[in-house]
Amino acid sequence: MKALINYRKVLIVGLGLIGGSYAEKLTRLGFEVGALVRRRQTLDYALEKGLVAHGRTEVDRDYISQFDLVVFALYPRAFVDWISRHQDCLKSGAIITDVTGVKRSVVPAVQGMLRPDVEFVSAHPMAGRERSGVEYSDSRIFADANFILTPTERNTPDAIELVRTLGCILGFRHIAVLTPEEHDEMIGFLSQLTHCIAVSLMTCKDSEHLAEYTGDSFRDLTRIARINAEMWSELFLENRDELLSQMDLFLGQFTRLRDALAAQDADTMKEMMRLSSERRAFFDKK
Amino acid sequence: MKALINYRKVLIVGLGLIGGSYAEKLTRLGFEVGALVRRRQTLDYALEKGLVAHGRTEVDRDYISQFDLVVFALYPRAFVDWISRHQDCLKSGAIITDVTGVKRSVVPAVQGMLRPDVEFVSAHPMAGRERSGVEYSDSRIFADANFILTPTERNTPDAIELVRTLGCILGFRHIAVLTPEEHDEMIGFLSQLTHCIAVSLMTCKDSEHLAEYTGDSFRDLTRIARINAEMWSELFLENRDELLSQMDLFLGQFTRLRDALAAQDADTMKEMMRLSSERRAFFDKK
Repeated sequence: MKALINYRKVLIVGLGLIGGSYAEKLTRLGFEVGALVRRRQTLDYALEKGLVAHGRTEVDRDYISQFDLVVFALYPRAFVDWISRHQDCLKSGAIITDVTGVKRSVVPAVQGMLRPDVEFVSAHPMAGRERSGVEYSDSRIFADANFILTPTERNTPDAIELVRTLGCILGFRHIAVLTPEEHDEMIGFLSQLTHCIAVSLMTCKDSEHLAEYTGDSFRDLTRIARINAEMWSELFLENRDELLSQMDLFLGQFTRLRDALAAQDADTMKEMMRLSSERRAFFDKK
Repeated sequence: MKALINYRKVLIVGLGLIGGSYAEKLTRLGFEVGALVRRRQTLDYALEKGLVAHGRTEVDRDYISQFDLVVFALYPRAFVDWISRHQDCLKSGAIITDVTGVKRSVVPAVQGMLRPDVEFVSAHPMAGRERSGVEYSDSRIFADANFILTPTERNTPDAIELVRTLGCILGFRHIAVLTPEEHDEMIGFLSQLTHCIAVSLMTCKDSEHLAEYTGDSFRDLTRIARINAEMWSELFLENRDELLSQMDLFLGQFTRLRDALAAQDADTMKEMMRLSSERRAFFDKK
């Protein structure tokens, strides 16, 4: 078994907020971190800030094939596309992992086409922020976040353990294992649905004049309404069936409360509020 | 003109979270604070903690008529009811104010029946918490909160100024003036609608097992799902027409996003996300 300590060199493909934060932390831990990015400017920034030791802006087989561990910090479709076009560049025996926020449309696609001498263990670091881009890299965002592994029957215990260790040393608070299906249902409800709600609320009206009256509730609820439109629309579409079912569940409850109010049915309103209060108690930070 | 400094004695009617916090702060500022409460236990607690100097658990004309300034920290209907039944106990020349979270159903009702020698200036300290009861009294909740005055043409400049000064010395960050109509529209959107959303989301499913995966977005969005069912159902019903119109506005936008996702209409999704991001920027704390 090769432990993570044997993987002195790590390649990060894509240096956005998450890729940049992985690079920063791994460099600080003593790894030799390389990068493959699209824009020269991104690489220059990462080199200047010491996030990475070296990098490339073109897919370069000699460079890529040096790495035993490769982290793909790309959007879902870009990741699947990269594998289909460039997987021949990967070193034989390499372990690859990712950071994508949807799993059913990514894991089987990549594992189904991957060379048999390369292993893919999928992971989702749940550590987004309202800002995107390498210049916001900051591995402190991992400290209070979850790292979800979604291994399948195609994975080996050693490779799963390696990626779990990666989550550990990056500093995630909590590491969990889910199937791709369980992951997508959970993320559809806890993360994607909440972003849909925040976006819908924020688009209701030209609320600029209301800012001065705003208490914590509106502010907390709409924090995530500042959203990377390219990334989130892709994530929503890649999890469409599951997210639609979560949105419909919410619509049903919201409409129930609305109709109770319209009918002056205080009993139903109070019953929903009591259930909501009871359930919310489980989410108080320990 | 009598400035607030001349009002050495203040009566608080109702010692919940807000009434108790008013009492605590005013006592600390050197006022002689009295209380009128329903339960002996509440009064004993307030006396023991030094929140008030004295108090009564029965409506006592001799006691109540000592006070030139009376703050009603009751639910809306209980306040209106108190005035209709006991206003003869108030001192001639007294100024009264309130803390209720709805105004159209309270201000005209109270001002319409009030003795001509007593003046009511309505105010809404927007400083709720998830907890209720005198034992959670803490005037630090005012520090980051808004104090909204809703005077009408029945009010005198001196009395308005007095209640504004009360908001100041209680330590509110921001003091604003709105009409009762503007207040109820604003509160319907910023506060009541957000509570409806949080309650609906929290009642969607038995989400206890999801707590370990929960990131900040779900936690922030549902913080207010722990809700005082008695108080909030009354507030919702007292602002029913306005809240229904705000809920329908939100339903329209949420359904628009849902239908765009169902139709794989990425352009509409991105357009909503961009608008939402742009508008949210106004709400970043300065």
